[in-house]
Amino acid sequence: MVDLVTSAEIADAFAGIRDVVRTTPVLPCSALPSRTPLLLKAEHTQLLGSFKIRGALHAVKAAGKRARRAGVVAFSSGNHGKAVAYAAKALGVAATIVMPVTAPAVKVEAVRALGATVHLVEPEKRETHPKELGERTGAVVIHPFDSREVIAGHGSIGLELLDQVPGLGTVLVPVSGGGLISGVAAAVKARRPGVRVIGVEPELAADAAESHRLGRLVAWPEEDTGRTMADGLRADRLGELPWDHIRMLVDEIVTVSEEEIADTLRQLAMAAKQLVEPSGAVAAAAMVHRRAALPAGGATVAILSGGNVAPGLAARVLAGGPDRPAEPARPAASRGVATS
Amino acid sequence: MVDLVTSAEIADAFAGIRDVVRTTPVLPCSALPSRTPLLLKAEHTQLLGSFKIRGALHAVKAAGKRARRAGVVAFSSGNHGKAVAYAAKALGVAATIVMPVTAPAVKVEAVRALGATVHLVEPEKRETHPKELGERTGAVVIHPFDSREVIAGHGSIGLELLDQVPGLGTVLVPVSGGGLISGVAAAVKARRPGVRVIGVEPELAADAAESHRLGRLVAWPEEDTGRTMADGLRADRLGELPWDHIRMLVDEIVTVSEEEIADTLRQLAMAAKQLVEPSGAVAAAAMVHRRAALPAGGATVAILSGGNVAPGLAARVLAGGPDRPAEPARPAASRGVATS
Repeated sequence: MVDLVTSAEIADAFAGIRDVVRTTPVLPCSALPSRTPLLLKAEHTQLLGSFKIRGALHAVKAAGKRARRAGVVAFSSGNHGKAVAYAAKALGVAATIVMPVTAPAVKVEAVRALGATVHLVEPEKRETHPKELGERTGAVVIHPFDSREVIAGHGSIGLELLDQVPGLGTVLVPVSGGGLISGVAAAVKARRPGVRVIGVEPELAADAAESHRLGRLVAWPEEDTGRTMADGLRADRLGELPWDHIRMLVDEIVTVSEEEIADTLRQLAMAAKQLVEPSGAVAAAAMVHRRAALPAGGATVAILSGGNVAPGLAARVLAGGPDRPAEPARPAASRGVATS
Repeated sequence: MVDLVTSAEIADAFAGIRDVVRTTPVLPCSALPSRTPLLLKAEHTQLLGSFKIRGALHAVKAAGKRARRAGVVAFSSGNHGKAVAYAAKALGVAATIVMPVTAPAVKVEAVRALGATVHLVEPEKRETHPKELGERTGAVVIHPFDSREVIAGHGSIGLELLDQVPGLGTVLVPVSGGGLISGVAAAVKARRPGVRVIGVEPELAADAAESHRLGRLVAWPEEDTGRTMADGLRADRLGELPWDHIRMLVDEIVTVSEEEIADTLRQLAMAAKQLVEPSGAVAAAAMVHRRAALPAGGATVAILSGGNVAPGLAARVLAGGPDRPAEPARPAASRGVATS
């Protein structure tokens, strides 16, 4: 039975987190007006620099008494880990963030600075370790995307967009595990079913695009998805609950190349004056480079999902010029597809 | 007799330009909350990437029939020139932008692309050439700052801030010729006299700070003011009308070093995800580096006045790291002061 997150759940989540999370602005994509409005939802200016705090805060809240007694645990070396650490601290809950031993020290320290305990584990234990910890200690596992509460929290972006952009026609959303697009689609389609919700993936990690096209959930080998510069979008497959949302609610999933992502990073910096991380530029890359393929009518909004880019990468992209992507172009993957 | 721009003039200007200019958002300065709100008024996301369109559009409108018959003329190799060209085009008026022969070709082409005629003149003719052209052809000269209409247009930023930041305590404004701070101060002080309006200048071009301290208008040699990386703030003296506003309405003018400007450019990029030009970072530099000296109480807003930074400079600043300013540090100027 399919049991999608409801608009009531999203409205409840929004009401519970809006005194902490920021209502992020919608910015024009260019320094000059465009015929059809091309807009950017500036989630890279969100608390901690990414949308992740929305779902994490609602999920830690919803974990209730058990979390206050036994804490929460999450696996992440990126924005989800920081978000769970921050949310837990704000709510007076103990947090353990499980990270791979390969994580850069700066990311470990950032999570510790937010008051969380860090467990460093072998990469292959990333799912089993939090689960075992939860079973042993009673800590509540906060999954980065395969969670009703996380999806409901992320859905608050959809509610904000409906309020901020009256002529909304199309929303472009980056896809990795699928939590963000599930929340946005559930919020938007419930209130305005005519608004198109389109996912965007790197060509090198296009498992969701393929799943959507085939109508069944497929995974890609991590050796493939690990090659994209959009390091927040390397999940090898959608979550089960996100997949239900995507197949029921999402109109289309398009892909963009590494060169297009790098070029968009630079265009966002020079034309819109916004600095984002590669994953955060992927939806805008579809707006810039796939305009002809996108549906016409109404305003188009791309979600800038995160801004936590390393200074060195940002500098290389800016120095690179429009024709030299920041990283060497890789040949398009001959996709190794595994059914799940 | 002192005849400052009134709040009624500013309200009229705002009503006349708001269908073209953007209401720019107010953004948090950091990815984490701060005890006292530190905010950024994002005028670098304004049409054409700077606040200049506000005053230029109102001034070209106010020039009325004479401008429609004989056109407008402005001297500028920067944001004011682009703003006058755009405003004239939007209103169906011919524009001549006078630029020094030393202007980079890319800036000349940017103005031509907006439909204006460009006159290249020797730098010392920058004031006489537009004046002679005006006398000969009837074209209306749009001065970049010594103009009631330009000041009234810029004042719309003050009206937006009063609306956007209910707990407004202090506004930090970059100062060059003084048009921006005059408009903001006139708007804010008329409605909320308790709000502090503080000007910010580079140490290397601190003629307004010295004028404010001495209580009389002084100019600095251009050889001095020309050294700051904040190339939009190299004016050697305030305009006469801005000076009246500044001495009557502005609480204080503080200065920041070149190292502090470069460091703030980088902090704005990494913490607030905003890319600005050096002149656009000067007010934020006071917020970041002069916090102890600033008055307490209420929210502090720094105006990010422009974002038209060269990609190479932006890349160098990002690559530089916090301890290496983008340009070699220069010794603090032993100020050569000339009375005007």
